[in-house]
Amino acid sequence: MIDWQRLWAPRSVAVVGASGRDGSLGQAPVRYLLQHGYPGAIFPVNPSHAQVCGMTCYPSVAACPGPVDLALVMVGADRVPAALADCAAAGAGFAVVLASGFAEAGAEGRLRQAELVEAAAAQGLTVVGPNCIGLVNPHARLVAGFSPLFARAAFRPGEIGLVTQSGALGFGIVSLALERDLHFSRVLNTGNEAALTTADAVSDLLADDVTRVILVYAEELRQPERWRELARLSRARGKAIAMLKVGRSQDGARAAASHTAALAGDDRVLDAVLRQLSITRAADIDELLDLAAVFRQPRLPRGPGAGIVTTSGGAGIMAADGCAAAGLTVAELGAGTRAVLERHIPAFGSAVNPVDVTAQVLADRQVFRTCLAQVAADPAVDLLLAAFCVLTGESADRTVEDLLTVAAATDKPVLVSRTGADALAHGAAARLQAAGVPVFATPARAARAAGALAAFAAARALTPAGPAPPSGPPPSARTPAQSLHRLPLPRQTLATTAEEAVAAAAAIGFPVVLKIASPDIPHKTEAGGVRLGLTTPDGVRTAFTEIITASRTYCPGARLSGVLVQEQIQDAVELLLGITPSPFGPLLTVGAGGILVEILQDTALRLLPIDRNGAAAMLDDLKVTRLLRGARGRPHADEEALIDLIMTITEFATTTPGRWELDLNPVAVLPRGQGVRVLDHLLITHEGGPHGTDG
Amino acid sequence: MIDWQRLWAPRSVAVVGASGRDGSLGQAPVRYLLQHGYPGAIFPVNPSHAQVCGMTCYPSVAACPGPVDLALVMVGADRVPAALADCAAAGAGFAVVLASGFAEAGAEGRLRQAELVEAAAAQGLTVVGPNCIGLVNPHARLVAGFSPLFARAAFRPGEIGLVTQSGALGFGIVSLALERDLHFSRVLNTGNEAALTTADAVSDLLADDVTRVILVYAEELRQPERWRELARLSRARGKAIAMLKVGRSQDGARAAASHTAALAGDDRVLDAVLRQLSITRAADIDELLDLAAVFRQPRLPRGPGAGIVTTSGGAGIMAADGCAAAGLTVAELGAGTRAVLERHIPAFGSAVNPVDVTAQVLADRQVFRTCLAQVAADPAVDLLLAAFCVLTGESADRTVEDLLTVAAATDKPVLVSRTGADALAHGAAARLQAAGVPVFATPARAARAAGALAAFAAARALTPAGPAPPSGPPPSARTPAQSLHRLPLPRQTLATTAEEAVAAAAAIGFPVVLKIASPDIPHKTEAGGVRLGLTTPDGVRTAFTEIITASRTYCPGARLSGVLVQEQIQDAVELLLGITPSPFGPLLTVGAGGILVEILQDTALRLLPIDRNGAAAMLDDLKVTRLLRGARGRPHADEEALIDLIMTITEFATTTPGRWELDLNPVAVLPRGQGVRVLDHLLITHEGGPHGTDG
Repeated sequence: MIDWQRLWAPRSVAVVGASGRDGSLGQAPVRYLLQHGYPGAIFPVNPSHAQVCGMTCYPSVAACPGPVDLALVMVGADRVPAALADCAAAGAGFAVVLASGFAEAGAEGRLRQAELVEAAAAQGLTVVGPNCIGLVNPHARLVAGFSPLFARAAFRPGEIGLVTQSGALGFGIVSLALERDLHFSRVLNTGNEAALTTADAVSDLLADDVTRVILVYAEELRQPERWRELARLSRARGKAIAMLKVGRSQDGARAAASHTAALAGDDRVLDAVLRQLSITRAADIDELLDLAAVFRQPRLPRGPGAGIVTTSGGAGIMAADGCAAAGLTVAELGAGTRAVLERHIPAFGSAVNPVDVTAQVLADRQVFRTCLAQVAADPAVDLLLAAFCVLTGESADRTVEDLLTVAAATDKPVLVSRTGADALAHGAAARLQAAGVPVFATPARAARAAGALAAFAAARALTPAGPAPPSGPPPSARTPAQSLHRLPLPRQTLATTAEEAVAAAAAIGFPVVLKIASPDIPHKTEAGGVRLGLTTPDGVRTAFTEIITASRTYCPGARLSGVLVQEQIQDAVELLLGITPSPFGPLLTVGAGGILVEILQDTALRLLPIDRNGAAAMLDDLKVTRLLRGARGRPHADEEALIDLIMTITEFATTTPGRWELDLNPVAVLPRGQGVRVLDHLLITHEGGPHGTDG
Repeated sequence: MIDWQRLWAPRSVAVVGASGRDGSLGQAPVRYLLQHGYPGAIFPVNPSHAQVCGMTCYPSVAACPGPVDLALVMVGADRVPAALADCAAAGAGFAVVLASGFAEAGAEGRLRQAELVEAAAAQGLTVVGPNCIGLVNPHARLVAGFSPLFARAAFRPGEIGLVTQSGALGFGIVSLALERDLHFSRVLNTGNEAALTTADAVSDLLADDVTRVILVYAEELRQPERWRELARLSRARGKAIAMLKVGRSQDGARAAASHTAALAGDDRVLDAVLRQLSITRAADIDELLDLAAVFRQPRLPRGPGAGIVTTSGGAGIMAADGCAAAGLTVAELGAGTRAVLERHIPAFGSAVNPVDVTAQVLADRQVFRTCLAQVAADPAVDLLLAAFCVLTGESADRTVEDLLTVAAATDKPVLVSRTGADALAHGAAARLQAAGVPVFATPARAARAAGALAAFAAARALTPAGPAPPSGPPPSARTPAQSLHRLPLPRQTLATTAEEAVAAAAAIGFPVVLKIASPDIPHKTEAGGVRLGLTTPDGVRTAFTEIITASRTYCPGARLSGVLVQEQIQDAVELLLGITPSPFGPLLTVGAGGILVEILQDTALRLLPIDRNGAAAMLDDLKVTRLLRGARGRPHADEEALIDLIMTITEFATTTPGRWELDLNPVAVLPRGQGVRVLDHLLITHEGGPHGTDG
């Protein structure tokens, strides 16, 4: 059990390897602790110096005159093991290893990192890093480590937590956030994550009392199996996680691998998993900070209806475009709302959503506030988006007051886009954000953030607040092949005489297909051993005889088991169902099957288990579902039976231990009421070779 | 012919309706002209006042003591006609009508706007607006109109031209640009575009000597037929156009229609047309300004190879991801380059692209400069992208110098991402941009801009510098239906006897299809009038007799023309080809045909004419092309014949006058060497009803 208090609010910080040379880089962490007003004890540690920054310098951590909660280890890579042993002997809680030269630096570095992990674990010390640059907790005035930012930034206590694998980029993100008046509760650079991982840190931030939103910058998601539960806690607690995961492209992934020894996963899988878990993925730093701005305020919309109020028609159009792209609706305002708006808005404005009050109205304080309040109060509106252009001076101040008044009178989220230089209305954005009204540079960015907020709110509404359902060992230890007997295969019977074939066809129902059954004839069609579309008993009788004759001619010595009589599949849509292991757990793929697999690349992915609603939602995500639902005059297909099949293999996946892959392709989905048929399937288990049946 | 000099560098500006009340809004345009140092004559015009801002106020434009080049018309909508008559009588060149209450304000406003257009045209006056807020030309110290921005912004002469239909949003964009040290050559708000259009203004900016990149904010693209030529000039002159066209969504389009009376076109068509014309479309204001930053510098890359140099592994990964997403490649550096880099970069950095020199190297000026120069000089590198994080103080200054030195020694574009607050390295971005090195907030944004630059460079390389090819009237006035005789239809013959049918089948080649030919039997299959897959003369003979018998039984009085003998189409991939009118000219659609049309929604669109290379590029854009090219063991299809057919209908489109639509669907593309068959086609002409043939 990690005692996070010793990291985030340490009673003392030892700076191991602090330099006695005034103004040097090696002294910077001590200076930063002093500069930002860290209230605990600071112990410079360096056997070569007596004093650092006017404070006593100690020869070792063990020699420090008091308990050490946090040690910043600044020595070179080769001296890190000794320093960690010193920390451990002194009973330090955390050692943050700043040095580079570990797993990111070739084979020798990887060996060094492995040794470091082993030593620390044996000694009960929690190691952060190596190859990191530190942490910040503004609530405890703790700025620990080195970054050029620390010399100049003013950290104020905030609500945003950041866990970043890259130090330089991570504090670059912090720098851009501070520029926007977004403030942090915690920042931790986890570096190579030899011991402490991003998942560990996120777990702590989910539990703390000050963090309201968690940002993650990741090059590799270690401990992927933990993220499902972290995401569930995030939803249950209403504390969103926004993630910038890089290494999307092949080139980026190669760079990630050489940077922090990270092997990038399949980005498409990650994308699907994060969406399923309601972890919002940001495409860039701007978007990550937009998400921070919208999620740090506590309100969640009850639905997707956006009420847009603007002083510029153009900004209104951009906001409407942005809402549509972000899955929001431009709410249709009630007649009462419109009537009030029409009384106040000039003819060259717009009283329908997006509501263009025009700049003229902005000058009339009472009227502007009335319009804002009316739109906010409309039952169809779940969130208010106010879009301005170039507010300055007194006009900006008045608008801020109006917005704050309206925001205080509603429990719906209120978002603002400014579309004007910050310097023109300096302090306006800060005032709004301090009061829980996030401010965005453009209408499109405000709308995108609002869409993420609504999506998280919708997912949260479906998440029970209680503990996670048990996911223990499977109830029975059936072997995979046994459990697949429930798959709906095509109806078929082996006939050894023509009359048996006729009886079988009658039982199965016409039309039927006949196929030679012989272990010695793999290419049945070539052997003349297949007849399709047989509609009468006579046809079956003749075909039986011809197939036997043709097969004997084709391969005189072949062992013939008989002739397989199968129902003929008609009017079917072919899908693919598959289960593959993934770092996050078993992953279900549903998609277009048969010939369409490669052309459409139309698949939906989900971590298992899912329920029937989840299965139906997967179908909603697929283009091929139009075919299931009667496109181009086709009969509606048997979606219920398809969902039954998805449930069958879901149960199979959750009760079957071991490492295996299942591939059902094609799965024929017949017209409604006629079910589905698995025409071919393949099970590959880790222990043995492939098992399969030939439909 | 518009004399743009009188708009952009007027000898005098009349402010019609200027208020004499000091500090009032109605006086603002006069104050702004004075404040920004406009060197020409200013004539306040208002019969109710003697003085405005200490200057003589005149009762009318005609009464002003000198020629009036530019009149800012600030009177209310109802008094605009009289004011324009006054301007025209005085020989003014341009009247910029600021008043609202025209086409954006209902039926009455639309009528008022129509009257205004008519009156101005009759009097030789060029009207800008109405419903606009003015223009800026920093090169002439002309700030004409009103925007809250004018009171506070310092305009410096720049190279960026902006044409915006929205005034508030447009000057919001200007404000955000100035915040980034991006400066303008021209800004024009065209408002409702009653007379002067965005196309007019872009045409002028393409011709001027100071503008290097043209930004467009549009809610409706008027005069769409002009954009092809504008885009050609843009490429020929190496002066890029970047466009933010809003109203993408239905809600956004509805808002656009009510805002500036604009009817939004089909956004998908616009997207395809802009891509074809190499007009870069921006999704948001941030991206528009990123494009301004990259296109205002004059260098174009010779290819897609990006050389990435960074001090942060994370920034390198983000840049690599961004390059991949933007169509760039992360260049593979030569062995010589790598050898030099390896000598200088520590083991924990990276000497392969993206090159991570590490922050350690940044401190060693000579080494950093060497690494930058090496990468820039590598033949595989077409552009250099340098990605930093949190540069401050002296380190920032030194880095700027290094970058400028390296940029001066190469002719390749050099781009920088800062990922740190601007205030930390104040002036650094401005210095770089002044020297032609654009600076971006994040690596992803730098990479996206670089991709747009490379795409424009590639398109420019294919554009002849000379005048446009003639696009006069068609050489002949064939009627559409006559011209379609060259379509490759399935081979078929009408047979009236069984023996004729056998002969026809032999001539066509087996297998064949037989179909009853009768004007009285529309549902041939139901009548027993269709037989497929006939492979022998006997089969054809029997089928002929059976079809005739079945048809007579089905419909005793039917007139029978005979039986159609057709080749049977096998192993074909079905495509759709279509030509539709669009505001930009005839538009060719090529896509997946038959049942795949609705499922795949897999289409490529191009304005006509295109050449064979253009047709091949369309196929490259389609998913269904995988089927043409042998996916899943299929035979390779006859792409050459398909391109022939595209050329045939392209020629048809460019030589056939009038308004019509052509739909070929399905088009069967047979295996290589066997050609294509148009199985069904439909021609709809504006004058008459549909013409078609039934394959």
